[in-house]
Amino acid sequence: MTKQSYAVIGLGRFGLSIASKLFEAGQEVMGIDIDEERIDDGKLTLTHAVVLDSTEEESLKSIGIRNFDYVIVAIGNDMQASILTALLLKDMGVKKVIAKALNKRHGQVLTKVGADWVIHPERDMGERVAHQLLSPNVLNYIELSSEYNIEEIMIPPGITSKNLRELDLRAKYNLTAIAVVNNENIIISPSPDQILQEGDKLVVLGNRENINQFANIK
Amino acid sequence: MTKQSYAVIGLGRFGLSIASKLFEAGQEVMGIDIDEERIDDGKLTLTHAVVLDSTEEESLKSIGIRNFDYVIVAIGNDMQASILTALLLKDMGVKKVIAKALNKRHGQVLTKVGADWVIHPERDMGERVAHQLLSPNVLNYIELSSEYNIEEIMIPPGITSKNLRELDLRAKYNLTAIAVVNNENIIISPSPDQILQEGDKLVVLGNRENINQFANIK
Amino acid sequence: MTKQSYAVIGLGRFGLSIASKLFEAGQEVMGIDIDEERIDDGKLTLTHAVVLDSTEEESLKSIGIRNFDYVIVAIGNDMQASILTALLLKDMGVKKVIAKALNKRHGQVLTKVGADWVIHPERDMGERVAHQLLSPNVLNYIELSSEYNIEEIMIPPGITSKNLRELDLRAKYNLTAIAVVNNENIIISPSPDQILQEGDKLVVLGNRENINQFANIK
Amino acid sequence: MTKQSYAVIGLGRFGLSIASKLFEAGQEVMGIDIDEERIDDGKLTLTHAVVLDSTEEESLKSIGIRNFDYVIVAIGNDMQASILTALLLKDMGVKKVIAKALNKRHGQVLTKVGADWVIHPERDMGERVAHQLLSPNVLNYIELSSEYNIEEIMIPPGITSKNLRELDLRAKYNLTAIAVVNNENIIISPSPDQILQEGDKLVVLGNRENINQFANIK
Amino acid sequence: MTKQSYAVIGLGRFGLSIASKLFEAGQEVMGIDIDEERIDDGKLTLTHAVVLDSTEEESLKSIGIRNFDYVIVAIGNDMQASILTALLLKDMGVKKVIAKALNKRHGQVLTKVGADWVIHPERDMGERVAHQLLSPNVLNYIELSSEYNIEEIMIPPGITSKNLRELDLRAKYNLTAIAVVNNENIIISPSPDQILQEGDKLVVLGNRENINQFANIK
Amino acid sequence: MTKQSYAVIGLGRFGLSIASKLFEAGQEVMGIDIDEERIDDGKLTLTHAVVLDSTEEESLKSIGIRNFDYVIVAIGNDMQASILTALLLKDMGVKKVIAKALNKRHGQVLTKVGADWVIHPERDMGERVAHQLLSPNVLNYIELSSEYNIEEIMIPPGITSKNLRELDLRAKYNLTAIAVVNNENIIISPSPDQILQEGDKLVVLGNRENINQFANIK
Amino acid sequence: MTKQSYAVIGLGRFGLSIASKLFEAGQEVMGIDIDEERIDDGKLTLTHAVVLDSTEEESLKSIGIRNFDYVIVAIGNDMQASILTALLLKDMGVKKVIAKALNKRHGQVLTKVGADWVIHPERDMGERVAHQLLSPNVLNYIELSSEYNIEEIMIPPGITSKNLRELDLRAKYNLTAIAVVNNENIIISPSPDQILQEGDKLVVLGNRENINQFANIK
Amino acid sequence: MTKQSYAVIGLGRFGLSIASKLFEAGQEVMGIDIDEERIDDGKLTLTHAVVLDSTEEESLKSIGIRNFDYVIVAIGNDMQASILTALLLKDMGVKKVIAKALNKRHGQVLTKVGADWVIHPERDMGERVAHQLLSPNVLNYIELSSEYNIEEIMIPPGITSKNLRELDLRAKYNLTAIAVVNNENIIISPSPDQILQEGDKLVVLGNRENINQFANIK
Repeated sequence: MTKQSYAVIGLGRFGLSIASKLFEAGQEVMGIDIDEERIDDGKLTLTHAVVLDSTEEESLKSIGIRNFDYVIVAIGNDMQASILTALLLKDMGVKKVIAKALNKRHGQVLTKVGADWVIHPERDMGERVAHQLLSPNVLNYIELSSEYNIEEIMIPPGITSKNLRELDLRAKYNLTAIAVVNNENIIISPSPDQILQEGDKLVVLGNRENINQFANIK
Repeated sequence: MTKQSYAVIGLGRFGLSIASKLFEAGQEVMGIDIDEERIDDGKLTLTHAVVLDSTEEESLKSIGIRNFDYVIVAIGNDMQASILTALLLKDMGVKKVIAKALNKRHGQVLTKVGADWVIHPERDMGERVAHQLLSPNVLNYIELSSEYNIEEIMIPPGITSKNLRELDLRAKYNLTAIAVVNNENIIISPSPDQILQEGDKLVVLGNRENINQFANIK
Repeated sequence: MTKQSYAVIGLGRFGLSIASKLFEAGQEVMGIDIDEERIDDGKLTLTHAVVLDSTEEESLKSIGIRNFDYVIVAIGNDMQASILTALLLKDMGVKKVIAKALNKRHGQVLTKVGADWVIHPERDMGERVAHQLLSPNVLNYIELSSEYNIEEIMIPPGITSKNLRELDLRAKYNLTAIAVVNNENIIISPSPDQILQEGDKLVVLGNRENINQFANIK
Repeated sequence: MTKQSYAVIGLGRFGLSIASKLFEAGQEVMGIDIDEERIDDGKLTLTHAVVLDSTEEESLKSIGIRNFDYVIVAIGNDMQASILTALLLKDMGVKKVIAKALNKRHGQVLTKVGADWVIHPERDMGERVAHQLLSPNVLNYIELSSEYNIEEIMIPPGITSKNLRELDLRAKYNLTAIAVVNNENIIISPSPDQILQEGDKLVVLGNRENINQFANIK
Repeated sequence: MTKQSYAVIGLGRFGLSIASKLFEAGQEVMGIDIDEERIDDGKLTLTHAVVLDSTEEESLKSIGIRNFDYVIVAIGNDMQASILTALLLKDMGVKKVIAKALNKRHGQVLTKVGADWVIHPERDMGERVAHQLLSPNVLNYIELSSEYNIEEIMIPPGITSKNLRELDLRAKYNLTAIAVVNNENIIISPSPDQILQEGDKLVVLGNRENINQFANIK
Repeated sequence: MTKQSYAVIGLGRFGLSIASKLFEAGQEVMGIDIDEERIDDGKLTLTHAVVLDSTEEESLKSIGIRNFDYVIVAIGNDMQASILTALLLKDMGVKKVIAKALNKRHGQVLTKVGADWVIHPERDMGERVAHQLLSPNVLNYIELSSEYNIEEIMIPPGITSKNLRELDLRAKYNLTAIAVVNNENIIISPSPDQILQEGDKLVVLGNRENINQFANIK
Repeated sequence: MTKQSYAVIGLGRFGLSIASKLFEAGQEVMGIDIDEERIDDGKLTLTHAVVLDSTEEESLKSIGIRNFDYVIVAIGNDMQASILTALLLKDMGVKKVIAKALNKRHGQVLTKVGADWVIHPERDMGERVAHQLLSPNVLNYIELSSEYNIEEIMIPPGITSKNLRELDLRAKYNLTAIAVVNNENIIISPSPDQILQEGDKLVVLGNRENINQFANIK
Repeated sequence: MTKQSYAVIGLGRFGLSIASKLFEAGQEVMGIDIDEERIDDGKLTLTHAVVLDSTEEESLKSIGIRNFDYVIVAIGNDMQASILTALLLKDMGVKKVIAKALNKRHGQVLTKVGADWVIHPERDMGERVAHQLLSPNVLNYIELSSEYNIEEIMIPPGITSKNLRELDLRAKYNLTAIAVVNNENIIISPSPDQILQEGDKLVVLGNRENINQFANIK
């Protein structure tokens, strides 16, 4: 992987999570916050960390912000600072600006001032949690289209020790079994005779409602 | 899907996102907040919404909290209220308590007082964003094991109009093609002759590093 | 003059000054402020006045904001509210949105979210005051181009009872006399023999530096 | 122009605008503010800048305030500080004190304690904006008397390519054409045959209502 | 005594003390305060008491302020409100305005905006206390000129049972004995043979320093 | 006058007035305040001035508080600090503690914890002002008993150029003339033929109501 | 037990604990607090509960405070309110006033204003906890004199199944065994042959140091 | 007594009382507080005292917290800090954690996160005060079982100069006299002929209600 440079503005829980993950992946990461305490925190492990006000052009210039490949605006609750920072970054020629929006309107303004990618973490995470509550056996999923999903399903206790054919996976639910995961072993494109045990996970592809029905059988 | 009843305590952006999604899915959802303004907000579309202090046992009793199938504690920044609420809910016999943690220590306390599922939305969402920044062509993913992923990849402009065999998908990267997504059409288990166009998405299963290499070819 | 309808959001000193002037001119003016005290103020003489939060779409809809010919966003110090209001107004289809900027960056954001006319009252007024301090005899002026002005000059005591020719107005300063104002009498295109008295005002057109020299002679 | 010395007390947006303009014009300008941050701001380009409390006589004495030709009291929102400062300045013998008033009553007090010139920037700027809204084609104006104005008018699209005679400028509206401005070219005292193009600006002198009628023809 | 009408604005300890004393003396007294709690206080015994903001002309008009013989501005700590109120009262034609000053500068402004009598209670009372500390035997005094006082002196234990002649009152100190006060009995123009007892009070007239020497003999 | 030592705790307007007056009279005065700004104020002219918290025994000990002849507790609004300070001072053996009370109850507590002299400056000054408003011609007074006063009266315009006999001073009002003050001249025990001029001041002794009647004749 | 009447002023944790205990014991208890929320709390089970400011004499009179046998001033952190309340209660003739002190000085003032019993709960409870930490086997104790205690001791595991004689209780430690407590059974004045089991508690009387030595043997 | 090491976190009145008592008893005591002022307080006499935030693992590690025999969490009002600190201490392996609870729920959480001993000082002290108010002659007591107490009783004036037999101590009340305390003299197991004097204290063992009856006889 080519090494890229990232600046993360706003080291709250969200920004810190991004910055740490990027740093762990071997990238060059500069952390930026207006609050000195966050920068002085002993636990911060980044390439660099500086205290500065990201709404001041001079400060951003002094750290050569336009040389970063990506700048992430992860400012917590100060909508005004978030907007002015995004505007400044694009004005100064930063190529990729990613910005966190607090709500829909904030997201619209960020787009209008030029942010390249606008994220709504609270909303998106809420939706993921709701999805999991609705289908407790579904562990993870990818939305392929408005109707089709790939979903990773926890085998419910009741259907244990049956094979895929007995479960009518294709006939009744029209689902394609992608993989069976048994701890660290992965059986790709499992045969209809593959037997499922309690604790196994099954990855299927199919219509969302059909998956839902299958995942909730008892 | 059987209809379940949910109570969401704390209607900030995260709680509201969960509550709305559940309500849209046809579930019975009660919204609870200590702040009257959030409950009076005209845009709130839930089954019920009440103003109450969730750290008071009498108040929770008065709405029959123990009859709900799930109670989600999505309290924003008041760690103390979050802990006391989770404790109370378990003491009163609520079967499933899901609680949002502000940080690692908060999460530990929530587990100790009995919360059934502890969520770290800021941390998790930050990790998802970091993953996407590291592999901009990867749109979505499921972690199957410590080594294997299923990932949905945007076809980069350069490799357009080649078929899967030419791309050495299996030979060089040892990846299994699960599906090709072309707008709303989904080709499941595509043949090696399947041609990829710019804008298509490819879903592959394989070793994480191999996927990463393939996703970043130019 | 055709009657137009105006809504002024933010009834601070600046907004109130606009609203009053428009109302005195016989226009239909609605005053809007989030602060009830300003609306209840007995001295407010407008067509209508309502208390509402201009960052809430529903509230703006309820008063039919899109039917106004002009909406002036004169919000005092809350930059975030000013930006969200301007965005909302344009989104809802208001034809002409005029917005007050607190500084240069704020002005840029207002333009990006669609404001039709952005005003910097503090900056502009400061410049006018500075201009007058630099040339105390100049009462008022219009900038015609980067070099030429029309200026209204108070005749300084020393040059009194001379006519325009003696003053070398055209020969030395290359200025055109537009008018001489003597209390309520106005002599348009005065002849070179026109005598100037102490207290008269002279309107000239010419190069800015030349006017400056002439205005400061003693 | 003789060089004069100015002190500007209060470096908010209004005070800063005055101070910068005066400094750009080559004058000696001292900036004064009670707030250290404003003085330390790297962007401040004045002759001198000091932090001090302008309501303390000793502080003002220490910078030799009475030697300045003009002192501008541009204090933002603290009416009490503004009044005490103006009083002190006059008591100490400052010749010219210019003071910004927040409202009518404040203006009266400033006059009573001896301020030589009292300015109402918010009110005056609001009036200018209202004037422009009422006559959108009017770009700038000078009030000569209670009835007569000189106004700079944007030629509306409809009346394009007509000469002044055809427009009945003198016959119908009794207006005198002072100049036609076409980008950087200025035609002084244009002849009746002068043709107007879209985008030209016309400077006229006449009765305010007549100008208004002419400026709004379509 | 003719009955007069008084309005006291600001019912803090100072204002209340004035208002109560005037009311006890049978005068018509209206109490005014911006703080509702002070007006609702059950212990307030005045002719009338109203809640209003004395910086608003309309409010003052509504109670017919200009018909009062005296208006006392006893506003506690808000210098701005005190100044604006005094200005307004004089503008509205109140004949006698008495105003409390917080310090010397405040007193100057009050005089400039037209207050008829400016009081410095903290300063004056402090001076009285200092005077008494310096001459503990002096109970009360009137300053007749820059040198002469009338003072009421407590007879110190040591000089008891002497007559005025023995005390050298006139010969040594050049003081005139005005009266001897013995509980409720008052001996006016006492003879030189008048004997003084411990606990008696002597009223003398004379040079300040002489009185001081006499008052401090032991 | 013997030199005494004073400590004044609390350098607000009241405490400062006492301290300054004592210092001007040549006494040794230490100023004490918990607020550093008041001690650093350049205008403070006392023998010593220290920043300390007077509710801490150690701090008071460190400056040898018990060696002062008088300690004045002039703490502004913090009733608790005032009470604790007075208690401490008496506990530590200070001989004379003078304390300012904010109201009647506060005064009672100060007496109970041992204060030697309790002062109510706001109440007392208010009463003096009320007295003067009731008898505008009375400039100053000493209360000798519950019925008798000595008062200094401004001669009202109407009674000018009459002698004391014509004024019926003794016959009608039963008043004793103590002195007539004419600028800096003082006539002690004036004869009945003494003529009074406008601007003179008359000092009389008599029954309070009689003085009042005389002082208000027109 | 005769029924007595109690008023508890200040319903914080401490006051509430007293009030509840007294009410459970069948006494008449009135709860008083300045904070409405505490009075409206649904869980409050007292004879009466009223919202009032205990520093206002009228309020206390209105509930007939002087008829209560005991008034407990349990005000949390407001030292000033605590002092003024205690003063008022004694002034109004309340026979027994019990008051909580925040520290030593506060306790002194409460005594001086007449409180009959002053309690230092934080200090006393801290001392009890320290005592128990120092002697973990001591469960409870009564101080009889400066040297002698009665203490209830948990029998440590090591000395189990010995009788009192073997433990040298009297011979070595000079302690008198008062009782042996075995769950709910109590053996008063146990004989020297009484055997002690793990989990028994022994009550002894003796010199404090001796008890301490005995309690810590292993 | 073996020397033990204690750390007390939170040096408010309660924590300070514990810490001082332990230090006086010759133990090694470290005081910890987040507030620098409390640590710098000159009166603090402990083995060590440090400023640190007890919710930060690194800080606790730096002082070797796990080597202390006991850690007392005496944090005043910050429930969240109290919970996180207790959790951290147990996680880091501290053997004995004693924690102060603000209320019942707080106590439950402290127990769940692992606190070894939870104290409710306000509640317990309140109960002791209530007990004493109910039986004013009872000075101190030990609860032996749900029915039996040992109580130290002040002999009421009326029963003076009687011996124990006359008082029917055993016959009527079934109480055992443990000791009679007369100033510093203690008579252990007094004989029935022992005479009681006013001011003596009697220690009895018996049924709680019987003691109560005996203690309240008159």
